[in-house]
Amino acid sequence: MVYMSKEQDDKLATKKITKREVDYSAWYTDVIDAAKLAEHSPVKGCMIIRPNGYAIWENVQKIIDAKIKESGVENAYFPLFIPEKLLRRESEHVEGFSPELAVVTSAGGKTLDEPLVVRPTSETIMYEVFSNWIQSYRDLPLLINQWANVVRWEMRTRLFLRTTEFLWQEGHTVHATEQEADDRARAMLEMYRDFAENIMAIPITPGMKSESEKFAGALKTYTVEAMMQDGKALQFATSHNLGQNFSRPFDVKFLDENEKTQYGWQTSWGLSTRVIGGLIMAHSDDLGLVLPPRIAPTQVVILTVGSGENFEAVKVKAKELLEQFKKADIKAKLDDREIRPGEKFFEWEKKGVPIRLEIGPKDLASNKVVLARRDTGEKKDASFENLAETIKAELENIQQSLFDKALKYRIEKTKTLDNSDEFRTAIEEGNFVLAHWDGDKETEAEIKKETGATIRCIPFNQVKESGVCIKSGKPSTGRVIFAKSY
Amino acid sequence: MVYMSKEQDDKLATKKITKREVDYSAWYTDVIDAAKLAEHSPVKGCMIIRPNGYAIWENVQKIIDAKIKESGVENAYFPLFIPEKLLRRESEHVEGFSPELAVVTSAGGKTLDEPLVVRPTSETIMYEVFSNWIQSYRDLPLLINQWANVVRWEMRTRLFLRTTEFLWQEGHTVHATEQEADDRARAMLEMYRDFAENIMAIPITPGMKSESEKFAGALKTYTVEAMMQDGKALQFATSHNLGQNFSRPFDVKFLDENEKTQYGWQTSWGLSTRVIGGLIMAHSDDLGLVLPPRIAPTQVVILTVGSGENFEAVKVKAKELLEQFKKADIKAKLDDREIRPGEKFFEWEKKGVPIRLEIGPKDLASNKVVLARRDTGEKKDASFENLAETIKAELENIQQSLFDKALKYRIEKTKTLDNSDEFRTAIEEGNFVLAHWDGDKETEAEIKKETGATIRCIPFNQVKESGVCIKSGKPSTGRVIFAKSY
Repeated sequence: MVYMSKEQDDKLATKKITKREVDYSAWYTDVIDAAKLAEHSPVKGCMIIRPNGYAIWENVQKIIDAKIKESGVENAYFPLFIPEKLLRRESEHVEGFSPELAVVTSAGGKTLDEPLVVRPTSETIMYEVFSNWIQSYRDLPLLINQWANVVRWEMRTRLFLRTTEFLWQEGHTVHATEQEADDRARAMLEMYRDFAENIMAIPITPGMKSESEKFAGALKTYTVEAMMQDGKALQFATSHNLGQNFSRPFDVKFLDENEKTQYGWQTSWGLSTRVIGGLIMAHSDDLGLVLPPRIAPTQVVILTVGSGENFEAVKVKAKELLEQFKKADIKAKLDDREIRPGEKFFEWEKKGVPIRLEIGPKDLASNKVVLARRDTGEKKDASFENLAETIKAELENIQQSLFDKALKYRIEKTKTLDNSDEFRTAIEEGNFVLAHWDGDKETEAEIKKETGATIRCIPFNQVKESGVCIKSGKPSTGRVIFAKSY
Repeated sequence: MVYMSKEQDDKLATKKITKREVDYSAWYTDVIDAAKLAEHSPVKGCMIIRPNGYAIWENVQKIIDAKIKESGVENAYFPLFIPEKLLRRESEHVEGFSPELAVVTSAGGKTLDEPLVVRPTSETIMYEVFSNWIQSYRDLPLLINQWANVVRWEMRTRLFLRTTEFLWQEGHTVHATEQEADDRARAMLEMYRDFAENIMAIPITPGMKSESEKFAGALKTYTVEAMMQDGKALQFATSHNLGQNFSRPFDVKFLDENEKTQYGWQTSWGLSTRVIGGLIMAHSDDLGLVLPPRIAPTQVVILTVGSGENFEAVKVKAKELLEQFKKADIKAKLDDREIRPGEKFFEWEKKGVPIRLEIGPKDLASNKVVLARRDTGEKKDASFENLAETIKAELENIQQSLFDKALKYRIEKTKTLDNSDEFRTAIEEGNFVLAHWDGDKETEAEIKKETGATIRCIPFNQVKESGVCIKSGKPSTGRVIFAKSY
């Protein structure tokens, strides 16, 4: 990896980002590099989230945290380490996570009697404690969330999408009834869908995971799946109805209103830094990052153009505009460095700032600025009069337009197919395929082996129709979504 | 540890908290337990921060994060794991931290070629990367902060004060000159002092650590020291001028304006969840937690009194007040459960909420509430008229009054002594002692061995005066602060 000083970096403002059609994977890395979002670290598989990338994560946290709290959930913090024996208590769970565990075997200069696992997720450590917190139905529902780092040892890592350590929130709840738990799991999935679509402008297909694809230990896993620009699917977030699968081994039980002992019904749900990978891949283009206004740390940047005599007045006006925007709750920045306009322009372009305003002596004289949209590249004059209002409206336009574009793309790239050759081709070319499936694990595994496609979800809006499985020819009652995925 | 349901817990609202004078250490644990702030976890030395405790930490984060950003620093995130060889590169640093390290030796089912240390602090991993980010003086200053968990293997742990894993922020900066680095280290210490005094109402003695007490690898360590109610010191936060001690082994260098290669001048500074321990011990009393209004997650709780016929009107009024307070930016809660008033009263008392408002049918008829101050126990009637204003003023009174009380206590418990017997007694009885010291490491170690006292700091406001060392009788130019500490 080559590191550059700001100076060198500015010179490379025009450095070519690999085109998507040439090498999609290199394009992704180039966009991250150009926008200084993240980089690989000296520790294999771990990433460094640079300030520009972390600012996006802070916005995610702020919005999601508020939604979580509104829904009655409280934040807490549980230990990073999990004793191995706790992790082993739910058999499917430990089986699912075993290959990915990082283990502390020595501490304080001594070998530990019992190894400690670095949490890959916190069900086991939390539920061991929940069993002490809950005695009666009056203690329910118990609604806890934590913001934390987790570690899953991955062989093949990619910045944001799959890293050995990542940041996330994990919600964990306990309820008195199965129905209430399922309602909560569905409600949190709906929160993720709303966030993806209305904040990140990423269209979502919500649905249920197949048995093979569900979370290790869950009864049901609900998922929100998004399509990236190469037609592959990204699991944006998941929410699990855990049933009593954990409450039984962890003894999470309560006395009901009739003084009868019952096991609790549980859920867990999480969203991680991988959504930033999804955000990048959903909207960015060959010029670099494109950010939807509602998640962008900077929504508008004011670029002064020119230098010399008339320039002071331009600077004064630019600062005045900056203050005006801040008062109007627009996240604005000013770049009044006296360098070539092109350099500034390209720098903010590749950083994905939704609107760039250019102001020079001529603009000042005509009481206007040049407003450039990052998403379409469109440029137009905008009057000083009501400029904050103009910008707010334009930001909303951009937000909607990015969503519409992504939705149009997904619709175009979603095929309803019944022929297995067409299926194979569509998957190869990067599509979501709606196809019939016989509901069998083996069939699913064979399809994956042959085409690389997995069942992304059984969509909530699945139409009941009789058909025959695309692979086995056995009967099916509805189509599921197949795709390659990240 | 005994866990209780809400129901059992309410019954125990009147459960006696151990008195400070009986057993200060048991009192501390009881206060935490009664307010449900934290508890020990199934992992030795690690704590669970419960929602009531975590809400305090969230307030700390919100305030400190804003101050850090105002000072021009950006947030980022670096890996949890540090390759052992990186940690070894600065010899004093690794020597200081070696006894406390937790080490991952196997991951993904395989033994690692190189063990990974769970970060005890992030200087080494960050500076390895900084060396790539910085090329020219134009890249300076580099100002980075991270919010993270860190692990230091401790033998004797206490909730919040000393735990194997804790949460903190760690700031790391690189500057072109020694002066600029020292100014930054001092400025961040001033930020901590301001936060401790003006938000947490904890009086601070700022100063410099002695050579023996400074951070492993630092040139100078600045500290803000606070006095607890047993007269012991708590190191509230520290800020280090690292000089070029890390920039040389980590190759953090830059080309200056004359194209000459220079090593950077660095600082690091941190504040952790231990400040919550300090907060508890600075203000709480034998009835439980006492929180200063500016850090309290809940500033006012409205308690309805009574039940039955007239009660509906009381509830309506209580809700109206709640909305009114929220609009006035007062953090308010309503407890309108129909249980015994005493139960409610004690519950919120031990949670440390600064103001409790009681409203019953009689109060409603007289257009007033009963306002009870948590800190003094004082009760008085308060008219509905301008109630939000009355409360805001009262909250400010409480904030100031808690600070004044703590300051008065510290002044009373700070002795200026020249006699070694008096010194020993004063330390034993829990005091800060201002005494002369010859500046020698050996002397300092002997004093520690004999009395348990360490040099808390060489105060910034040290008066230059000639004297003789309290231990060695050798000459000294000013007094330093000795105390036992947490």
